[in-house]
Amino acid sequence: MEIPSNYIEKAVEQLSSLPGIGKKTALRLVLNLLKRDSEEIEIFAKSFTEMKSKVKSCRSCGNVSDTDICSICENPRRNHALICVVEDIRDVMAIEATESFKGIYHVLGGIISPMDGIGPSDLNIPSLVKKAGSKQITEIIFALSPTMEGDTTNYYLFKKLKDFGIEITTLSRGVTVGSELHYADELTLGRSILQRQPFNF
Amino acid sequence: MEIPSNYIEKAVEQLSSLPGIGKKTALRLVLNLLKRDSEEIEIFAKSFTEMKSKVKSCRSCGNVSDTDICSICENPRRNHALICVVEDIRDVMAIEATESFKGIYHVLGGIISPMDGIGPSDLNIPSLVKKAGSKQITEIIFALSPTMEGDTTNYYLFKKLKDFGIEITTLSRGVTVGSELHYADELTLGRSILQRQPFNF
Repeated sequence: MEIPSNYIEKAVEQLSSLPGIGKKTALRLVLNLLKRDSEEIEIFAKSFTEMKSKVKSCRSCGNVSDTDICSICENPRRNHALICVVEDIRDVMAIEATESFKGIYHVLGGIISPMDGIGPSDLNIPSLVKKAGSKQITEIIFALSPTMEGDTTNYYLFKKLKDFGIEITTLSRGVTVGSELHYADELTLGRSILQRQPFNF
Repeated sequence: MEIPSNYIEKAVEQLSSLPGIGKKTALRLVLNLLKRDSEEIEIFAKSFTEMKSKVKSCRSCGNVSDTDICSICENPRRNHALICVVEDIRDVMAIEATESFKGIYHVLGGIISPMDGIGPSDLNIPSLVKKAGSKQITEIIFALSPTMEGDTTNYYLFKKLKDFGIEITTLSRGVTVGSELHYADELTLGRSILQRQPFNF
C-alpha cells in the first residue's frame, strides 16, 4: 500500500510513531486533518511545540506543571508529611479524582522496565530519597500499578527508603468495588482473603 | 479529571479532535510526545503544516498528489476510458494494491451522508459529469463502500450519468474470499446466490 504523496507519508510516519497508532489509523487521522483549513492545522501543530517549550517539571514533586512549583506542592492545606509515589501525571489525576488523598505526590516519570530499557537512573528517584532524608516525612505510599514492573519498582524503592524510619505503605489489593466476585482473578481473590478486613457498617 | 497544565490540556484537545481519539487516549499520546526532545516535536508539528501547504488535489481525478496531475492520471499506459469512482485516497490505495485495475480513478472526497451534513455539493461530482460528457469514457465503475451512504451516492451519481450512454458498473458483492460460508451475512449470501457465476477452474 503506497501513499501517493511524500508529505502525507511523512505526517503518517509521525502520527504512527505514537504508541498504539498504526499506519492505517494514522492515515485516517491525517486525511481528517487534511480536510481542515490551514489555520486549524497551524493551531493543531502549534499546540505540541508550545506544550514542549512551556510545560515544566514541578521542582518539588516532578509532576508536569505550568509553574516552577505545582499547585499541589504549593498548597499549604495539603499534608506535606505524606507522600504518594506514582508513575505519571495520569495517576495523580486519577487519585485526585477520588478526593481521598490530602498529602502530596512524588512523580517518578515512569517505572523500572528492563524490557523497555528503563532503569532506576531514568526515573525521578534521587529527589525522593533526599526528601525521605529530610525528617519531615512520616509516611510514603507506593501507588504504582500492580504489575511486574510496578512490583520491581516498589522493591527497588523499598530498599532505598527502608532505613529512614519512615512508614512505607502500598495501596490495598482486593476485589474491585461493583464487580462480581467470581470474575476476580485468583491472585487478587487470594490476597483479599489473606488481607481480610473487620466488617464495618 | 483535571489536567494540571493548560498547555497539555490544549494539546490533548487538539489530538482528541481527531476521529476515534478520546481524551484518555489523547493524554497518553501527549505524554509520550512530552518525553521526546524539542527537535523531534518540531519535526512532528511541521509534518502537518507542511503537508497542508504542499499537498494538492490532482486536477484531473481529485486524488491527493504532490504534483498538479497525479502519477496515475499522468501514466499513458493506464486506460483513460475506464474510470473507477471512489470515496478517498485509501480506496485508491486498496484497489492499487490488488493490481487488478488498469484504468484511472475519480476521487469524490467523501460520500453523501445527510447525518454528517455531507451533500452532493460537498463532493467532487461536477468534474466527473464533465468527464462523462467528453465522449472518451467507455465505462464508469462505482467502487463505493457497500453501506447506506455508498448506495445513496451510487444512486445520485447514476441519475447524473445515465444519459451519457456510458456503461455503468459496480463492484460485485458476494462471499468473502477465504471466509467460512456460514459466517456470511444473509444479505450478502442472498446476493451471491442471485448473482451466481459460471464455475471456472
